[in-house]
Amino acid sequence: MERRRMLAASGAAAAVLPVLAAPALAQAMPEIRWRCASSFPRALDTIYGAGEHVARRVAALTDNKFRIQVFQAGEIVPGLATLDAVQAGTVDCTHTASYYFVGKDPTFAFDGTVPFGMNFRQLNSWLNAGGGREVLKPFFDTYNVVSLQAGNTGAQMGGWFRREIRTVEDLRGLKFRIGGFAGNVLAKLGVVAQQIAGGDIYPALERGTIDAAEWVGPYDDEKLGFQRVAPYYYFPGWWEGGLNLAMLVNKAKMEELPPLYREVLESACRDATIETMAKYDRVNPEALRRLVAGGAQLRPFPRPVMEACYRAAMEVYEETSNTNAHFKRVWEHFKAYRETQLQWFRVAENSYDSFVYAMQAQEQQARR
Amino acid sequence: MERRRMLAASGAAAAVLPVLAAPALAQAMPEIRWRCASSFPRALDTIYGAGEHVARRVAALTDNKFRIQVFQAGEIVPGLATLDAVQAGTVDCTHTASYYFVGKDPTFAFDGTVPFGMNFRQLNSWLNAGGGREVLKPFFDTYNVVSLQAGNTGAQMGGWFRREIRTVEDLRGLKFRIGGFAGNVLAKLGVVAQQIAGGDIYPALERGTIDAAEWVGPYDDEKLGFQRVAPYYYFPGWWEGGLNLAMLVNKAKMEELPPLYREVLESACRDATIETMAKYDRVNPEALRRLVAGGAQLRPFPRPVMEACYRAAMEVYEETSNTNAHFKRVWEHFKAYRETQLQWFRVAENSYDSFVYAMQAQEQQARR
Repeated sequence: MERRRMLAASGAAAAVLPVLAAPALAQAMPEIRWRCASSFPRALDTIYGAGEHVARRVAALTDNKFRIQVFQAGEIVPGLATLDAVQAGTVDCTHTASYYFVGKDPTFAFDGTVPFGMNFRQLNSWLNAGGGREVLKPFFDTYNVVSLQAGNTGAQMGGWFRREIRTVEDLRGLKFRIGGFAGNVLAKLGVVAQQIAGGDIYPALERGTIDAAEWVGPYDDEKLGFQRVAPYYYFPGWWEGGLNLAMLVNKAKMEELPPLYREVLESACRDATIETMAKYDRVNPEALRRLVAGGAQLRPFPRPVMEACYRAAMEVYEETSNTNAHFKRVWEHFKAYRETQLQWFRVAENSYDSFVYAMQAQEQQARR
Repeated sequence: MERRRMLAASGAAAAVLPVLAAPALAQAMPEIRWRCASSFPRALDTIYGAGEHVARRVAALTDNKFRIQVFQAGEIVPGLATLDAVQAGTVDCTHTASYYFVGKDPTFAFDGTVPFGMNFRQLNSWLNAGGGREVLKPFFDTYNVVSLQAGNTGAQMGGWFRREIRTVEDLRGLKFRIGGFAGNVLAKLGVVAQQIAGGDIYPALERGTIDAAEWVGPYDDEKLGFQRVAPYYYFPGWWEGGLNLAMLVNKAKMEELPPLYREVLESACRDATIETMAKYDRVNPEALRRLVAGGAQLRPFPRPVMEACYRAAMEVYEETSNTNAHFKRVWEHFKAYRETQLQWFRVAENSYDSFVYAMQAQEQQARR
């Protein structure tokens, strides 16, 4: 220690010391192979790519000693059955959106996104500095998994509609392809929520079996070609203000990892969050422009529709809290944190953003 | 390879192979010590802490083989002279805000933040997926440094004013403690920009030697006690819509690192970005509440003031581009990327955010 301190204190900037600890190091870095079942098809290169990014970073940080092989949805496990496979130890982990598992327990939604919940920054703060991860832990423990944040889509779009939504009444009877928890909210307003796998949405929209469908955002939506059969493209996707992606890891497998690899996995997942957010924000603007040029009609949800959905969502939170202790515990923590976040973001962040967007709109107007 | 493939394809979830590569590994992970000069005092635990976080992650990812010792501003190098020290190789790297060096060249500002520039998400996208890092590289090459993103403050506050700003005219003659590049913008509107070190701001404000001062955001500002002598707390800090923090590394030192450690350093810096953003968003809301309870008067800059500043900023960009080739090259790339980002964020992201903030305001109103 003395020598190290002296070197550190001397002017010598970088000191390469002789290696004394090779055997310890080799023990710390054994060769390990993991299998990761993604919930996403490879064709969704951004969201699926987040899982591959984790694998790439894990390899890069361990000189290829720790390797994770990622399988696309359906390759070894169906996309929505990956949690079962992790629990059973058939695979070591799944790269997924935790809200896919709200059928098991709606508490999963908080690890993904919830209607009128927190945006990317706010959820990131809750999970990493606000105690969110700790609050979710006892819940994930009951499934024998550890959840690591590994990507985000940002605020999503509200989806594709065959006809315009002008009033709250227009929601009544609307056959809308939308995921679990948000479906419960919309059901209160008369929407008939439909669960349809990605590949089946287009024909259902085309035939009119459904009236509307939501998917992700411009970049991912574009691949499915919805604008040709349901031209009204609504925003915002208030049920997904910033979808957090997760690496759900079998708890025993996590504990078996050498400590160094646990750190590596944590870092790789955080890296994937930065990377995925950066990529989505690069590809979405270009895709949106192409969609609009190709006939998509951009529409904001009318304010009264948004307000009715908001009230319905708050009712669902209260009702679910009454029957589910995990949900209640997490919702109360989440709700209180969201409250402080919104108060702060309303000030500097939102006034800054809103002003620059307004100036851009003004400049566009002037150019016309 | 055959055996690995078989193992990967078999049901065996994690396969721990015998270690074959210990000598190679030991070579890949020598003991290295670096010294990092921070531009921040330790008392600013969030922003200074980002540098320490990098050091912690580097140690965690290398089993303590690669260690970075972080020194606070002034400890071995004055806070604003750290780039010189990195160039000279006196230290290996500096954790800083690149815009501190606009006196050398205003092009540094793009690596930090610029007036009416991109927010955290947008800048993150530009740097990591939009080609920003590549566009900045030839510029940083001329200083023999590599810049790694390592933290962000989010949108900052507009600072503390002894009297209210009601019109553009109120800016004329205003003695305002504000950093370099934004000072040039405000000079166009008659502001007398002042450069005063952190510790000297409070007495200057108290005596009325200056009329106003900007610092960071609620959490950092609170420590300096400005609300007692300049109660009007303006927002947003349009000159810092999302200050990126940087780890500027001596290029030769970077190249001397074993490849594994280069990857580790990159990951550790990205980790610090997630961590710092999460922490700022946790501590700022609480600090803002305390400041307001303690007498701070929150004020938005009036729209005409914002617009005059916006026009002045665009003039400064054009003027600087006319005389500085690096600046022109980077600004043109930055500006085009910003344009696509604003178009996209105006849609889903801002409509989502603005709606939830409006609902919160409505709920607060109803509770009163």
